[in-house]
Amino acid sequence: MGLIVQKFGGTSVGSVEKIRNAASRTAEELKNGNNVVVVVSAMGKTTDHLVDMANDITKSPSKREMDMLLTTGEQITIALYSLALAQIGIEAVSFTGWQAGIKTEAIHGNARIIDIDTDRISNELESGKVVIVAGFQGVTDDGEITTLGRGGSDTTAVALAAALKADKCDIYTDVTGVFTTDPRFVKSARKLLSVSYDEMLELANLGAGVLHPRAVEFAKNYGLPLEVRSSMEKERGTIIEEENEMEQNLIVRGVAFEDQITRVSVLGVSTSLKGLSTIFTTLAQNHINVDIIVQSRTEAGTANISFSIKSNDLPETLDVLERNKESLNYQSVESETGLAKVSIVGSGMVSNPGVAAKMFEVLEGNGIQVKMVSTSEIKVSTVVNEKQMVHAVESLHEAFELYSGAVKAN
Amino acid sequence: MGLIVQKFGGTSVGSVEKIRNAASRTAEELKNGNNVVVVVSAMGKTTDHLVDMANDITKSPSKREMDMLLTTGEQITIALYSLALAQIGIEAVSFTGWQAGIKTEAIHGNARIIDIDTDRISNELESGKVVIVAGFQGVTDDGEITTLGRGGSDTTAVALAAALKADKCDIYTDVTGVFTTDPRFVKSARKLLSVSYDEMLELANLGAGVLHPRAVEFAKNYGLPLEVRSSMEKERGTIIEEENEMEQNLIVRGVAFEDQITRVSVLGVSTSLKGLSTIFTTLAQNHINVDIIVQSRTEAGTANISFSIKSNDLPETLDVLERNKESLNYQSVESETGLAKVSIVGSGMVSNPGVAAKMFEVLEGNGIQVKMVSTSEIKVSTVVNEKQMVHAVESLHEAFELYSGAVKAN
Repeated sequence: MGLIVQKFGGTSVGSVEKIRNAASRTAEELKNGNNVVVVVSAMGKTTDHLVDMANDITKSPSKREMDMLLTTGEQITIALYSLALAQIGIEAVSFTGWQAGIKTEAIHGNARIIDIDTDRISNELESGKVVIVAGFQGVTDDGEITTLGRGGSDTTAVALAAALKADKCDIYTDVTGVFTTDPRFVKSARKLLSVSYDEMLELANLGAGVLHPRAVEFAKNYGLPLEVRSSMEKERGTIIEEENEMEQNLIVRGVAFEDQITRVSVLGVSTSLKGLSTIFTTLAQNHINVDIIVQSRTEAGTANISFSIKSNDLPETLDVLERNKESLNYQSVESETGLAKVSIVGSGMVSNPGVAAKMFEVLEGNGIQVKMVSTSEIKVSTVVNEKQMVHAVESLHEAFELYSGAVKAN
Repeated sequence: MGLIVQKFGGTSVGSVEKIRNAASRTAEELKNGNNVVVVVSAMGKTTDHLVDMANDITKSPSKREMDMLLTTGEQITIALYSLALAQIGIEAVSFTGWQAGIKTEAIHGNARIIDIDTDRISNELESGKVVIVAGFQGVTDDGEITTLGRGGSDTTAVALAAALKADKCDIYTDVTGVFTTDPRFVKSARKLLSVSYDEMLELANLGAGVLHPRAVEFAKNYGLPLEVRSSMEKERGTIIEEENEMEQNLIVRGVAFEDQITRVSVLGVSTSLKGLSTIFTTLAQNHINVDIIVQSRTEAGTANISFSIKSNDLPETLDVLERNKESLNYQSVESETGLAKVSIVGSGMVSNPGVAAKMFEVLEGNGIQVKMVSTSEIKVSTVVNEKQMVHAVESLHEAFELYSGAVKAN
């Protein structure tokens, strides 16, 4: 008899009908002889509706009161979920974040879990009940209600699974698993049976944020197996775990991509050490996320620094650079919009130095110019023209034999 | 510098616009130099919407999970109210029932407050903040979320005012005060400037439940002055307090009434002591509220017992009597529907024995037959034909000179 944590996201509990369906997945797990803890998000549009009301009142709502407001969303779902289980004869009890003992740091809007006091949940599990916990929320030592920020319910589920020493954490969502690339763009995309934690982290932007990176990191730290699976389709999903036997021979596991990327180049930067770090410190202080960074020296002894950002951060980025021109000590700024990032991900890559070369070869052979490159042990990212993004993804998906029915070898 | 507790009901916070308006009433009280604690209900239709979703799932929801579900309603309001205050430059902090230290007995759906730990609220008041508390809800020693049942937010406000030793508790609602009778039926109805706690208890069914009897009793026990006033109109409301100087000469304070009353008569009841009490014990066990009771003896040595109930309880009442015919030991049951209760209320009545007689005289003079009578120290109730109810109310309202401009004397 094991313990399974099931997490259902907002679309999987978006209506009374869907809550009933999710409850039937809990019933199945009980029939398998397991104890079950369920973590749920707010129902579909509930959060949007609450945010709209707050915005009607003020343009700058306090984070504390937004936490107070938004945590009602999951509280509604846990109560309805518990009623749905009772209706099919399953004893259940619902807990808010504070009732479930989820202690966080004293930060509103984006708190981290610091401890989970599992006594209350364990007692209810021992008495044979299903325990339903409100995701995304916790409480500080002072009794303040907090939220965990984006992907918070995933984090709640994984943290609870770790604290309760669960055998597995199942993330139910509106896709059937993690794919080699986004099936909405590439028809031959194939569902992966398993990926490693690190690969999942790199693939996190596939499939419309199917699993939050923070939750993956947490699971990795505790060696907790995750499964991403569909709340509607009864088929096996994708297992995320350290050991990755079934597909371990695959060098490249998937192709990730992201559009609306802009390259910004800061030219003629003084190469004093301080000058270089100051650019990125300044951008970070202004909450601009920088992704790929490339640096080159000029003959004049200065440096040209290029980096990629999301296109909608461009006006703010240019403004920050302009306002700090003196302290940053550069000559000029250039930018290029209409770009996209295309990456290949796979933990086998680290021992195969030819992978990046093959990637460039494939892109060049398809007439796709590579404008920036960044590599890590399990990923090679390139920046290309946005109009060529899907073509690049398809070419790489095929060249690395990720399509359905491809021979698993290399 | 005093402390005022303000309570706003569901219609007074039924939209973002109305929350803004209510917040302006809090601002006024601050300008008067007072500290303010605000107690709010769920926004207008929120509770209905939540109940509908629960009913879609199950016909017999557990009370615990309904408490979990419904308490989100007030939590939404407190957050929005706090944002509305911040928007007009007022520092505020919102608390759920458990955060406000409102401890209740371990009963779901209808818990009573057993203690209020006011430390957290007091600390925030001392730091100059307005404290906004979710009405209707509390927490047990075991950390279970409870609700206080009907009129719960009134009770929260009065209990908090008592615990915090507030100077006054203002109940903001959609009427401008307590009236001599329902102004929707009798045009000459007049707003009372003050009534005593006991009178208010008897008048509680006037003005569509303007103030819950439980809250009035609580206020009476602590000698806490209440004011019922409009959240929209800026005029003085009705003060409820023990001393009642301004209108103390009035014998009759108001005329209360209620339609859809049924008389049930149980005929030929054995007059053994046990037999008599058993009827009402049995009805109470079946949650049937009995109001007026009249008993008479027959020549045969048995008794005829008549009582009034709400008409929609009739089928259940007849069923209970039928099922227990043997143990109750009676001969037959009669019932008459289409009746109404009309009462005159006033604490001056106790020292004026002629008041009841005058009431009957007025009704008879207007061709209205009195079918049942019940008296208390401050009230005389009669049961009349439902079709004559408004006529009876108008006649009494005029005869006891309750109309606007009447001379206050007797």
